[in-house]
Amino acid sequence: MYEENKIKDIVNCLLYDYDDNRYINKIDLDNQPDKKAIIDIINKLFKIIYPGYYTDKVYKIFTIKNNMAATIEDVIYHMNKQIMIVLKYCKKFPFLGDVEIEEKTREITFSFMSKIPQIREYLETDIQAAFDGDPAADSRDEIIMSYPGLFAITIYRIAHELFLLGVPMMPRIMTEHAHSLTGIDIHPGATIGRYFFIDHGTGIVIGETTTIGEHVKIYQGVTLGGLSTKGGQSLKGVKRHPTIKDNVTIYSGASILGGDTVIEEDVVIGGNTFIVNSVKKGTKVIAKAQELEYKK
Amino acid sequence: MYEENKIKDIVNCLLYDYDDNRYINKIDLDNQPDKKAIIDIINKLFKIIYPGYYTDKVYKIFTIKNNMAATIEDVIYHMNKQIMIVLKYCKKFPFLGDVEIEEKTREITFSFMSKIPQIREYLETDIQAAFDGDPAADSRDEIIMSYPGLFAITIYRIAHELFLLGVPMMPRIMTEHAHSLTGIDIHPGATIGRYFFIDHGTGIVIGETTTIGEHVKIYQGVTLGGLSTKGGQSLKGVKRHPTIKDNVTIYSGASILGGDTVIEEDVVIGGNTFIVNSVKKGTKVIAKAQELEYKK
Amino acid sequence: MYEENKIKDIVNCLLYDYDDNRYINKIDLDNQPDKKAIIDIINKLFKIIYPGYYTDKVYKIFTIKNNMAATIEDVIYHMNKQIMIVLKYCKKFPFLGDVEIEEKTREITFSFMSKIPQIREYLETDIQAAFDGDPAADSRDEIIMSYPGLFAITIYRIAHELFLLGVPMMPRIMTEHAHSLTGIDIHPGATIGRYFFIDHGTGIVIGETTTIGEHVKIYQGVTLGGLSTKGGQSLKGVKRHPTIKDNVTIYSGASILGGDTVIEEDVVIGGNTFIVNSVKKGTKVIAKAQELEYKK
Repeated sequence: MYEENKIKDIVNCLLYDYDDNRYINKIDLDNQPDKKAIIDIINKLFKIIYPGYYTDKVYKIFTIKNNMAATIEDVIYHMNKQIMIVLKYCKKFPFLGDVEIEEKTREITFSFMSKIPQIREYLETDIQAAFDGDPAADSRDEIIMSYPGLFAITIYRIAHELFLLGVPMMPRIMTEHAHSLTGIDIHPGATIGRYFFIDHGTGIVIGETTTIGEHVKIYQGVTLGGLSTKGGQSLKGVKRHPTIKDNVTIYSGASILGGDTVIEEDVVIGGNTFIVNSVKKGTKVIAKAQELEYKK
Repeated sequence: MYEENKIKDIVNCLLYDYDDNRYINKIDLDNQPDKKAIIDIINKLFKIIYPGYYTDKVYKIFTIKNNMAATIEDVIYHMNKQIMIVLKYCKKFPFLGDVEIEEKTREITFSFMSKIPQIREYLETDIQAAFDGDPAADSRDEIIMSYPGLFAITIYRIAHELFLLGVPMMPRIMTEHAHSLTGIDIHPGATIGRYFFIDHGTGIVIGETTTIGEHVKIYQGVTLGGLSTKGGQSLKGVKRHPTIKDNVTIYSGASILGGDTVIEEDVVIGGNTFIVNSVKKGTKVIAKAQELEYKK
Repeated sequence: MYEENKIKDIVNCLLYDYDDNRYINKIDLDNQPDKKAIIDIINKLFKIIYPGYYTDKVYKIFTIKNNMAATIEDVIYHMNKQIMIVLKYCKKFPFLGDVEIEEKTREITFSFMSKIPQIREYLETDIQAAFDGDPAADSRDEIIMSYPGLFAITIYRIAHELFLLGVPMMPRIMTEHAHSLTGIDIHPGATIGRYFFIDHGTGIVIGETTTIGEHVKIYQGVTLGGLSTKGGQSLKGVKRHPTIKDNVTIYSGASILGGDTVIEEDVVIGGNTFIVNSVKKGTKVIAKAQELEYKK
């Protein structure tokens, strides 16, 4: 390029731009949460949760149990490290010293790891619901290996446990990873019961304070959202997303909005409906037939 | 971490959880379909289908034809291996012995590979349709290198051939890979004619038994779906998605549902319409102007 | 496989298919735009724009400023190379000789790099808007590390500068990379003011000739699009997408279409509305309550 001076100028100009305290400049690398490391933990958790489905050639020379043991220890180590970083970084426990935070971190890591069998139990019900609900499903294996809905639910169930244990930032990085790969945006704070089935899934949004019962089925483009976010940060923690009870089916493109909106048991919500009021048990709600115009 | 016993407990607890016959536990690594290997095959097929567009520096020291020959052989080898695995794994031919399955596999692999020139012919028409249909397109090269619609259609056309040849699981893993990267969910079982153009694409769902003619153009958020999936597995194989004939344009957010719904030639379907009945040739269907309320 | 002849046949058949001048066959590897290299440039620009947020372990042994200097030089080198390739490849300056194109390229690269502080300033306002507008946001750091909206806006702001500098193809490859990872499709040609907030984002489409003011907030599934693309290439360059002025909020699923459609200051556009006419300052527009049918 032969224009060394020009390059130097640009480098200096950009470096100069880092010389202040704007939050856009975080250059303390060692104590930063590491997105790549967190996604790596997710990938290893998939191997632990669905043993054998997410193969890894290197492991094939060992016995499977030894492999799994090694993977589990590895996840414990890295999860502990990342949780410690986010606890310190987000100043979650401002009154605790370093030793106490380390203790707290271990407690959280171990609690999370011992929840895995229960997460697996829930996921088995989700797989069953997908198989029962989708005529295009050939086998449960196909669902585990290729269904984006199950992928997003798996990451949600992991992130939700970490959310309940008070871990900041990490759960959201996890669910946004799922969102990126599937188009399904489930906030880790949402509460979702067993036998949950998402079909197709692209465009689904499930807000932070949503509650969903068991045997619920939702399709692409469904929003379980807030009525207005004009309040911004002042709405933090307020219940602003709907409650969906057991055995509810919500067809594609429906929006159900508001923290007081309750969809009772055994309800079917038709496609493209816009629901801002509660719906009583056993009702089928559909949009009144759209008037269409036919022109030649 | 200094808590070796705690770690041992967790490892043992999780390993214990693998000690039963739940389908969530598949630990026979050698005979499992390998998602990574299947995606790798797709990436190499892109190099074969669009020679030169998906560059690979390592190849530059050889002549191009030798490179392509090497890539083609490589795909044949890996495709054959993965097809054999899925045929055995899904017990597709329960009455055949190992030698016969190997023969069957070779037959399928060779059939698929010899379809590639025809796939390329179809894709050339799809590129032409994108160029003709999109004012924002600068060149055909830009379409090949950056349009998600063409990317998803390419994978669909590959997966559809494998689907027709009776390969289980693999086609769906392929189209779900496209779905993940584009938000466009085309089931490998759908039948789609030449000159197919998808613009933007996010949120599109095209169900398993959909039939689409030639010169069809669809926009983001369009669903070609089923009316109800309450029947679950009992609907397997039944025609439950619509038929779209030649020269049809479907604008964004439209839903066309049901196996008996036929959209005849030269129809335009307006944005956000909800169509559950057939539409006659040459008609333009739009939603009656939505009544809007204006408040101060 | 033991079927060497069969393999040879297939290889020859495919190689034969490359023997013509179809645009699907581009085998001049050295002078092709390289998508991977372009995405690599984006990843490095993220490190420059948000120093410290996108960590890289290898860098930790140096001082941070040296790292950044090295990364900046690296981006200058590769960006210059890729810009030169696309300028030549797209025959952007047919009358210039090689030396003049090299000069032109350097000029563009340096112009772009010196725009980075201004891009960073804009992005700081976008982060602020996300924090103020989303009750679920815990911190600005969380937004930088996990919000897909900010990710897509960052890539758009980079691509838009390259677009303004007349670089072909590369800007679109960049925004389609963002589209793939977020479901948010912003054309690099769109003009977007400061304090822009996208929540959730999946399914958003912002067309090439859209203009957006400051403090605008849009939700998932919003289309800012054209009324009809029947004109195809003849509409190239024509203003065909809407103008959105300052302080406008557009809720999920709304479509605003047409080049003459102007949404004036302080307007709120309700969810799922279909807007093809201009809206006056300070108005709130909502779809008249959808008639719902309740069945038992």
